[in-house]
Amino acid sequence: MKFTKLYIPTLKEAPKDATLPSHQFLLRAGFIQQTGSGLYNFLPLGKRVLRKIENIIRDEMDRAGANEVSMSFVVPSELWKQSGRFFKFGSELLRLNDRKGNDYILGPTHEESVVDMVRGRVNSYKQLPLNLYQIGLKFRDEARPRFGLLRCREFIMKDSYSFHSSYEDLKREFDLMQETYSKIFTRLGLNFRCVEADSGAIGGSGSKEFMVLADNGEDDILISDSSDYAANIEAAKRAKRTCSAERPQSNGMLKFHTPNCSTIASVSEFFKVDPFYTIKAVIKKAIYEDRSEVVIFFLRGDDELQETKALNACGALELLDADEKDISEAKLVAGYCGPIGLPEGINFYIDSELDGEYEMICGANQKDYHAIGVSIINFNKDRFKDLVAVKAGDKALDGGTLSMTKGIEVGHIFQLGDRYSAAMDATFLDENGKAKPFIMGCYGIGVSRLEAVIIESSHDDKGCVWKKECAPFSVHIIVSNFKDEAQAKFALELESRLESFGIEVLLDDRDERFGVKMADFELIGNPFGVVVGKGLANAEVELIIRDGLIKEKVASSEILGKLKELV
Amino acid sequence: MKFTKLYIPTLKEAPKDATLPSHQFLLRAGFIQQTGSGLYNFLPLGKRVLRKIENIIRDEMDRAGANEVSMSFVVPSELWKQSGRFFKFGSELLRLNDRKGNDYILGPTHEESVVDMVRGRVNSYKQLPLNLYQIGLKFRDEARPRFGLLRCREFIMKDSYSFHSSYEDLKREFDLMQETYSKIFTRLGLNFRCVEADSGAIGGSGSKEFMVLADNGEDDILISDSSDYAANIEAAKRAKRTCSAERPQSNGMLKFHTPNCSTIASVSEFFKVDPFYTIKAVIKKAIYEDRSEVVIFFLRGDDELQETKALNACGALELLDADEKDISEAKLVAGYCGPIGLPEGINFYIDSELDGEYEMICGANQKDYHAIGVSIINFNKDRFKDLVAVKAGDKALDGGTLSMTKGIEVGHIFQLGDRYSAAMDATFLDENGKAKPFIMGCYGIGVSRLEAVIIESSHDDKGCVWKKECAPFSVHIIVSNFKDEAQAKFALELESRLESFGIEVLLDDRDERFGVKMADFELIGNPFGVVVGKGLANAEVELIIRDGLIKEKVASSEILGKLKELV
Repeated sequence: MKFTKLYIPTLKEAPKDATLPSHQFLLRAGFIQQTGSGLYNFLPLGKRVLRKIENIIRDEMDRAGANEVSMSFVVPSELWKQSGRFFKFGSELLRLNDRKGNDYILGPTHEESVVDMVRGRVNSYKQLPLNLYQIGLKFRDEARPRFGLLRCREFIMKDSYSFHSSYEDLKREFDLMQETYSKIFTRLGLNFRCVEADSGAIGGSGSKEFMVLADNGEDDILISDSSDYAANIEAAKRAKRTCSAERPQSNGMLKFHTPNCSTIASVSEFFKVDPFYTIKAVIKKAIYEDRSEVVIFFLRGDDELQETKALNACGALELLDADEKDISEAKLVAGYCGPIGLPEGINFYIDSELDGEYEMICGANQKDYHAIGVSIINFNKDRFKDLVAVKAGDKALDGGTLSMTKGIEVGHIFQLGDRYSAAMDATFLDENGKAKPFIMGCYGIGVSRLEAVIIESSHDDKGCVWKKECAPFSVHIIVSNFKDEAQAKFALELESRLESFGIEVLLDDRDERFGVKMADFELIGNPFGVVVGKGLANAEVELIIRDGLIKEKVASSEILGKLKELV
Repeated sequence: MKFTKLYIPTLKEAPKDATLPSHQFLLRAGFIQQTGSGLYNFLPLGKRVLRKIENIIRDEMDRAGANEVSMSFVVPSELWKQSGRFFKFGSELLRLNDRKGNDYILGPTHEESVVDMVRGRVNSYKQLPLNLYQIGLKFRDEARPRFGLLRCREFIMKDSYSFHSSYEDLKREFDLMQETYSKIFTRLGLNFRCVEADSGAIGGSGSKEFMVLADNGEDDILISDSSDYAANIEAAKRAKRTCSAERPQSNGMLKFHTPNCSTIASVSEFFKVDPFYTIKAVIKKAIYEDRSEVVIFFLRGDDELQETKALNACGALELLDADEKDISEAKLVAGYCGPIGLPEGINFYIDSELDGEYEMICGANQKDYHAIGVSIINFNKDRFKDLVAVKAGDKALDGGTLSMTKGIEVGHIFQLGDRYSAAMDATFLDENGKAKPFIMGCYGIGVSRLEAVIIESSHDDKGCVWKKECAPFSVHIIVSNFKDEAQAKFALELESRLESFGIEVLLDDRDERFGVKMADFELIGNPFGVVVGKGLANAEVELIIRDGLIKEKVASSEILGKLKELV
């Protein structure tokens, strides 16, 4: 393919709001173009990469026995009302009306659609299992679209949905999908981990995320040094903490006057105890579908609240920081709030690690007073939830030590169970002729996001460094002077011979300075470059390995063989 | 591929609103599923066909040198305001708002997006020509979605857009695209014609449609028997009509009392003249962006108004029949309306064939009065437009006779000119360094529609009859009794050997009655069937050619070779 026949509008500068390398380089190298907030066009190079990623995913999904389908992007809201998500999904769900006023959504995910695809058509356990996948558009109206393809609003996703007659069979498919995803991300040349995850708005009984390890990742991942345990901080577990410092002693629960002690540090200082023996209160305003209310989360003084765990604990759509007005209206005392003696009707949760604790110090729910000798007993079991943000250095459940790293989510697999099928009345007859809701799994990959993730984890200061599996072209021929007949002839012949072996070639035939062509080669990042220049007179060309920009003189008669070997 | 591993929910009955064979069979055979008004899901078989169609289109577009891209489906309205189409496109354009209240549209076509993709990036004539295409979703909020995939709201389209420095170069690309489209539709095995067309809401200076000839087509096509002239009725031209009947004679223009002569038939009878010498008035209410008004179209008494031509003549968004109130408010007299002596300010158009006519009879714009001896002269040239619906039997411009047939539009190519680039200020520098708007072409194919069109033109009363180029599978093996070890073994071996030659096989391994499997083979319509049944004991199987259901006994040792030959 000639450079002059392909639309590759490279840019010298990236827009200022592009802060990540993948965002900058994909824009500058002419792979993508922004068309609106969180909306992108794919230019020819970007589209080539996208198709290669899609083909690898399609190939592995087909091998795993999944069936490719395609569901409408505009979805009647009626289906989302049946599942109950129409009102629960929040503002990321884009709602729209047609000319007749009927309401629809733009699919942010397609559980409802796929249930409707199977409902009434699969009637017997004999027709199960079934795994249906599609590669297509999704829309999520993100509050803050950013980082180019990493967090946009319209994006391409591979989503699949499986149907089973039992949880055992779901588990089998879940494991198969985990294996399939590992194959896909391995073929894409990514350094990834499969981690325990929170299930978020999709719901269900268990989920895992595939995280590509990258410094610019938005997710925190905890990894054990003693097993293959790895988890998103939103779902990470740790061994119950202990403390070597002395536990305070008291003669039963007592109130103490503690002026100016509204922080854990000052309380700890005042009583000369380790913060491990204090209890902190994090006061939030929880937004529900039909109301909002103050909710308090209690945890050890030296732990931090993990927001997603807190959200799951109280089941709210969203948690905001409570302001002074919220706190005073709830009749709470900021800085002096504790689990005992709260105003009636206040909702609260206590971190599970505090269950059964004694001789603790916490707020007395009275200005300038703390309680000592507090035992965390006699609370309803439902009050205890996992709330803590696990941190680097914490002990893992396997006895090892946890470390923290950054990751970008590229895949997420869920054991949904019957959350959607039961709500939408989608049943099959089991071996005894009894109607049961389908047991479901669902499995997503961020396809367009992957294009950015690959560059986020493979670039240098000059530009993109594509692996050969998904590079736009395998070989990039740079002709020093295309008007030089010998150079042009050699390059054209090399191109056509490489192409005859099925090797994809980009031949830079532009009438541009050598430096410009070289800079574009480095920016675009095809894995192998060949410079056809003055050396050709001595039967020599230069081979460049893009990864590391390693250069080597090669006899012009040997370059074809060499490239065939490399590609 | 085993039938039991693929989701193929065949149905005994099609829904009642499915009136066309393609709609009925694609639903019944489990290719598609309706999810809402004009919204469809593609099931595994339907998706397989879709991908084959897409691959043929992609292959030919690539060969023609076009570059594949992908433009966002959600498009900022701002771009459509720049082109002026945001307010002009009418209710088929689906408008929506995001969480911040910004307005967007779902792309019904992507001229604005592609201009924005090139604007500011292509600066010189040296970077031209350029042809960018995509295969992706479109949404048009049709007033009456119907006929399954033939007229839905969300659909898949291949749209491409070319950019040129001159009209000559646009013409070259337009011809190349016409040739490319002919190759595509030929590969798809379709009986099609390329016809002159109206440009509709896309605009521009000239367009052609690709029509598949089909009894159930929505379009009327006129075809000459003396050349390759063919045209959509919306754009069809004919030779000026003549009449052998005697022309009336008068002594100049006179008003005549003609009670109860409000129809052409009665006027013709009253004056004993051929309707050819009378003038009929068709009174419409024209809807514009900012107003509506009565418009009159005059044509010969024995001609009919062609609505699209009328719409183009007056430039309205829509034409409605004028009702009594509209007519009386415009001070017109229904049944007695003529081009001379109209109330001031009334807008009207006269069919070009009436230009210069004399001794005509028409309404006198007075109740119960007609005028005779009327000459159609002294009108502004702008009043004369091509308004007639050409009909079968009319003379073609080439001297031949026109016949009429039905067609389904599958492609449309346009010479846009600078309609979008000028409005959106998208320019390049020509050889003299002068900024000029790009000269553009655009070219569409209804990809998902093609899946239905193929069946509309290739089916029998049992079901679909796929050509091998886009059949879901080439070979369909029907095992009479899959529990019979010999039958199962033979079928599995045949499947795996065919697949080793790259032949796609669907093996019906279901535990169903033979009749059910046979009916599904006929319904699904893969081109070649092999029945493995009792005959196997005598080393015989049955080969079925789906087109015509031609059956032939074949030695079991020869079936592989035979199928390789056929496929």
